[in-house]
Amino acid sequence: MGGKLEVRSTIPVRDKDDLSLAYTPGVARVCTAIADHPELAYEYTWTSKVVAVVTDGTAVLGLGDIGPAASMPVMEGKSLLFKEFAGVDSVPIALATTDVDEIVDTVIRMAPSFGGINLEDISAPRCFEIEDRLRAALDIPVFHDDQHGTAIVSLAALTNASRLIGKPLSQMRGVIAGAGASGVAVCRILLNAGVGDIAVSDSKGLVYAGRDGLNDIKKALAADTNKAGLTGSTEEALRGADFFIGLSGSTVAENAIATMADDAIVFALSNPTPEVHPDVARAHARVVATGRSDFPNQINNVLAFPGIFKGAFDVRAHSITEGMKVAAAEALAAVVTDAELSEDFIIPSPFDERVAPAVVAAVAAQARAEGVNRI
Amino acid sequence: MGGKLEVRSTIPVRDKDDLSLAYTPGVARVCTAIADHPELAYEYTWTSKVVAVVTDGTAVLGLGDIGPAASMPVMEGKSLLFKEFAGVDSVPIALATTDVDEIVDTVIRMAPSFGGINLEDISAPRCFEIEDRLRAALDIPVFHDDQHGTAIVSLAALTNASRLIGKPLSQMRGVIAGAGASGVAVCRILLNAGVGDIAVSDSKGLVYAGRDGLNDIKKALAADTNKAGLTGSTEEALRGADFFIGLSGSTVAENAIATMADDAIVFALSNPTPEVHPDVARAHARVVATGRSDFPNQINNVLAFPGIFKGAFDVRAHSITEGMKVAAAEALAAVVTDAELSEDFIIPSPFDERVAPAVVAAVAAQARAEGVNRI
Repeated sequence: MGGKLEVRSTIPVRDKDDLSLAYTPGVARVCTAIADHPELAYEYTWTSKVVAVVTDGTAVLGLGDIGPAASMPVMEGKSLLFKEFAGVDSVPIALATTDVDEIVDTVIRMAPSFGGINLEDISAPRCFEIEDRLRAALDIPVFHDDQHGTAIVSLAALTNASRLIGKPLSQMRGVIAGAGASGVAVCRILLNAGVGDIAVSDSKGLVYAGRDGLNDIKKALAADTNKAGLTGSTEEALRGADFFIGLSGSTVAENAIATMADDAIVFALSNPTPEVHPDVARAHARVVATGRSDFPNQINNVLAFPGIFKGAFDVRAHSITEGMKVAAAEALAAVVTDAELSEDFIIPSPFDERVAPAVVAAVAAQARAEGVNRI
Repeated sequence: MGGKLEVRSTIPVRDKDDLSLAYTPGVARVCTAIADHPELAYEYTWTSKVVAVVTDGTAVLGLGDIGPAASMPVMEGKSLLFKEFAGVDSVPIALATTDVDEIVDTVIRMAPSFGGINLEDISAPRCFEIEDRLRAALDIPVFHDDQHGTAIVSLAALTNASRLIGKPLSQMRGVIAGAGASGVAVCRILLNAGVGDIAVSDSKGLVYAGRDGLNDIKKALAADTNKAGLTGSTEEALRGADFFIGLSGSTVAENAIATMADDAIVFALSNPTPEVHPDVARAHARVVATGRSDFPNQINNVLAFPGIFKGAFDVRAHSITEGMKVAAAEALAAVVTDAELSEDFIIPSPFDERVAPAVVAAVAAQARAEGVNRI
């Protein structure tokens, strides 16, 4: 009973002297100091080190729109991972609204209590607008993990796959199944990283310029992807493709995987059921990754988000930039040594103790390099 | 650095089996169970045992409207006391709005994440409307501590002063200086407990029916108090009064205290400067209490709020009723044995280990008696 979290005090309250210091009357001096010098909140309160894990319960794991109450176990799990993997405190906040304006307003109003906002399991395309508006309104890190966590770890894994097979990202053509939060974000970070071309598919097939009924996000995607103008299915685009990344919850036929290029790379990331079983994919592809812990090469967001927030907090960054995300991916890829790198080891385990320090350091350094740090 | 709190996990994450259980894929079964049977959230998440400590920073201690960021040390202190004195987890939430509608909307939207709402340091009269609307909208305990915590502990102290001097509450006439959140709430609970009559004063003098410019709260107060229709100052009403309770931040002259009835009772509760110095009051009154820890008889809300929420949580009460508040006051008063009861011991110390269990048990029993419990 009672979930997976507790709030504890970090100072003792054993007698009335402790009480006077922690609460009235001693605390009044601390309040007055912050009122006079707002930056002292960083030293004197926990806001500078605590993340709000915010959801509206509309896109929870593969379960979909199960509502705020039923989403809480995932949010608590996220808080637990923040703490366990990078020592970051966080509080799960599941909202009883799915209205974009209301979510944005609510998070802005809560923001003085937190040092960062981790958006979680909010359905697309609402998640894009919510993140954009919160990033514009707040001067603390705002990060939609379903987008950027998946994107960062996928980029790291593809970087190491590229390193393994000796084919640069710029010479690769890939296919991403899924144009939701993670599909769009993975596509964006890979294009920024120089991947040659990507075709993205949604439930209606490949996304291409001029397709009927595209929303603004997919229109922008169509403009930047699918240079060949393919109009068919995911499977058709796979012919000759260098990599496939599944983020769709759908399935891909073995015979389509078989038509991919030599040294094909398959990331079948849907959970709990990958788009293609890894053993089946492995018969045709050189490198296979999934979202699962019971196969090699688990693409797991926990490799990214704890260290990213810790790195941002360490330098009091007022945002998490694209550069910081790429730096995190590069640091994560670089954890795998040449000696370790193999078909079954393109990405470290979440329990690899090298991961968080590497991500923290890279994110903090990049924040300083870009001048988004405060200290 | 970093304030007084941390969030910790209550379960281990040592390996990939722990990870699968706490997060994906294991957590999906827990989410699905809650989606199908919402009452399971009580067992499977921490929401059932965590309080949001919510403020807008408008009435912080005696400091007034210092804003949300500067109020955070007080809110963190409150969270610390919840944990230390009754094992209740809580999260400080300081809001960047002072608009009543926005505060109400924001708390309602956050509510799925919490098992109770403790309102804190919100200025009157807005605090009354905010509490009323939240109580009506939510099926979890909502409690404005500045009102009800102070009221409960004051009633307990006055009950024991009455017991000491042998004069029943019904035969007492008193004066309350201050018609803000705590003054109004203390007056209401004392009237409910049967006190004979009370005159309340604000910055313009005594509140009486027909006085110009009374807001709705004070109009209602005027209708229920000041039976003699006194129209002067606090001091004038003190002549012959049995008790004085100061909740005003103002001062009361020694010669006015000297005009009170025999066996007078003086609670000078403003912090850090009582309305009259306790040593001065003691020259004319039989029982003196303050809000300070460095004099006898400290009227401290921490005697009430941790046990009240714990008692409500123990039976999953959907609200904290007037009856539960009175039961808490009675239990708190009863902690002081006849042998202990004296002019300098009408209320136990916050560190008296009998306090929290007594309050918890009384609140839970009363909730059951009134049928506001769920278990």
